[in-house]
Amino acid sequence: MTNPLPQGAVIGILGGGQLGRMLSVAAARLGFRTHIFEPGANPPAGHVAEYVTTASYEDESALRAFGQAVDVITYEFENVPTSALDLLGSLAPIHPGRDALRISQDRITEKEFLSGLGLSVAPFAVVDDADSLAVAIEKVGTPSILKTRRFGYDGKGQARLKSADDATQALADMAGAPAVLEGFIDFSCEISVIAARSPSGEVACFDPGENVHEGGILRKTTVPANVKSSLRMDAVILAGRILNELDYVGVLGVELFVTPSGLVVNEIAPRVHNSGHWTQNGCTVDQFEQHIRAIAGWPLGNGQRHSDVVMENLIGDDMDRVPSLATQAETALHLYGKADVKKGRKMGHVNYVSAIAKG
Amino acid sequence: MTNPLPQGAVIGILGGGQLGRMLSVAAARLGFRTHIFEPGANPPAGHVAEYVTTASYEDESALRAFGQAVDVITYEFENVPTSALDLLGSLAPIHPGRDALRISQDRITEKEFLSGLGLSVAPFAVVDDADSLAVAIEKVGTPSILKTRRFGYDGKGQARLKSADDATQALADMAGAPAVLEGFIDFSCEISVIAARSPSGEVACFDPGENVHEGGILRKTTVPANVKSSLRMDAVILAGRILNELDYVGVLGVELFVTPSGLVVNEIAPRVHNSGHWTQNGCTVDQFEQHIRAIAGWPLGNGQRHSDVVMENLIGDDMDRVPSLATQAETALHLYGKADVKKGRKMGHVNYVSAIAKG
Repeated sequence: MTNPLPQGAVIGILGGGQLGRMLSVAAARLGFRTHIFEPGANPPAGHVAEYVTTASYEDESALRAFGQAVDVITYEFENVPTSALDLLGSLAPIHPGRDALRISQDRITEKEFLSGLGLSVAPFAVVDDADSLAVAIEKVGTPSILKTRRFGYDGKGQARLKSADDATQALADMAGAPAVLEGFIDFSCEISVIAARSPSGEVACFDPGENVHEGGILRKTTVPANVKSSLRMDAVILAGRILNELDYVGVLGVELFVTPSGLVVNEIAPRVHNSGHWTQNGCTVDQFEQHIRAIAGWPLGNGQRHSDVVMENLIGDDMDRVPSLATQAETALHLYGKADVKKGRKMGHVNYVSAIAKG
Repeated sequence: MTNPLPQGAVIGILGGGQLGRMLSVAAARLGFRTHIFEPGANPPAGHVAEYVTTASYEDESALRAFGQAVDVITYEFENVPTSALDLLGSLAPIHPGRDALRISQDRITEKEFLSGLGLSVAPFAVVDDADSLAVAIEKVGTPSILKTRRFGYDGKGQARLKSADDATQALADMAGAPAVLEGFIDFSCEISVIAARSPSGEVACFDPGENVHEGGILRKTTVPANVKSSLRMDAVILAGRILNELDYVGVLGVELFVTPSGLVVNEIAPRVHNSGHWTQNGCTVDQFEQHIRAIAGWPLGNGQRHSDVVMENLIGDDMDRVPSLATQAETALHLYGKADVKKGRKMGHVNYVSAIAKG
């Protein structure tokens, strides 16, 4: 295994949003310094990082300087351009590795990888044009959902098909991008597992949380998830298989549908995950520190929770509720320092903490 | 009362050590940005702050630029020079206020203030020279301890007198600085209360912790303190009286001796306090966020603890224990990112977390 990163080492983080911000704080807590690479001005992560590079992912000289200035590289989002990764990978180790990125950047590749592991995924078919969409509808049926193969997040790049009549409009919504048609799953709830793996192969999982989405955006995560303990165990084992297969280093988010016939994998994210924000106030070592520990070659925290938590995202105008939330006992605010409130924009989150319910 | 600080406001922090560092992280968590003013290069707080000014407290133009760039000013240590405070106070509000600083900067003023509130303090006498030391020994007795009136911390500027024979050496140790002779207190333990007060007069205290010092430096704080609950209540009420008398805004640390006849105040510190670091893993709102909330005019957290905690400082070579500590479950590391390990230097701390013991 790699040597543990020493005190004062610099961790490079691609992306300067809230995930990079919270990773940066966790890195500092372990005595590391951070360097944020972000195209946009005034990134939230920059407020708590020692170094910030403002440049595009096409700027080779900026990428080169960044890669030479850091000891290890990680990222807060999976859509980092391949060309940037190629250049950076020649200068410093990148964790999680290229395999995880390649797989999670493309919905088809991801589903084939998961199926190949024997895991259940929703029925799906490749869609490139009207003809392949017609074939896909034949195979997958309706209602179903058409998604771009790449670069989708928070419900963006998706169109629902109630029936085959919606095919033309849905295809137009893809704007020519390669797509995938996914069948709907009859699920009772969605849960997610935040799992971590170290370079030495140590695996640790946080307790699965139950997720509620609104408009394609995560609204709330409740921990523990209200599912049978055998299902929670299945979820953890499944996450461990994915991590080991990828020889993964870092934190991985795994979204799962709970169905009458067991767990179906919705998607995986090779990074810290919104549905893991509850760990900040429910665990001694949270998902951000867990990720930093993994990529730094440190021992992992055990993932045990000391409290039950409900995490709620503060989206857009939810920020108006902050003064009231600040008066509530056992309520932890985590605000991202974003300059402008916009509709649908994640501005912060709140963790409602309570003692672990017995029984 | 003052209006609450809005999102994105800049909090100026005098001092760039570990307390400034942890204040900066707490400020970011509430959506504020921070600006560190620190004479030394590469301050630990700078790793997690948006702005850093490296300049001396005598540099008027640097102070002026800093004061104009921030919305409110706080500090991580009480020995900020008066001239700097005068200049800064004309440019931005300073919390905690000048009264608290003036009192805590001088051991005599502090003891007279506390006595004036009817609180018990150790017997003391002013010492300026050999004659007044002789008088002081007459009054206070031996064993006793001679301390500089100002600028002492972590056991520095102190000399013990086993008997009057030690007078000459002890006085020499003061190097001509005005001093105070303090009588020893027959105490069973030292506890401290971390208390906070908002501009509107709201007061909140964390549970008292029990402190163990080694060589004048805090070694360990155990929460809850192993004292009668009536004493814990006395401590909290006493802290509240000090806060109200000072019309205080922010967090105050109060060190108390537990004696057969009740609580004796050792000293007060107008800032976040080493013996409050346990709150980071024991409470939903920790002392750093509590301080930021107070100086920002936000509602205070309630101080309730969800876990028992033992906090241990990592001093100098204790850093060699980090790899081993990182393997322990329910153990939270907080490292300060200081470049050089030095004997007696606080390099980090560790919180050992456990469920609240019943009964």
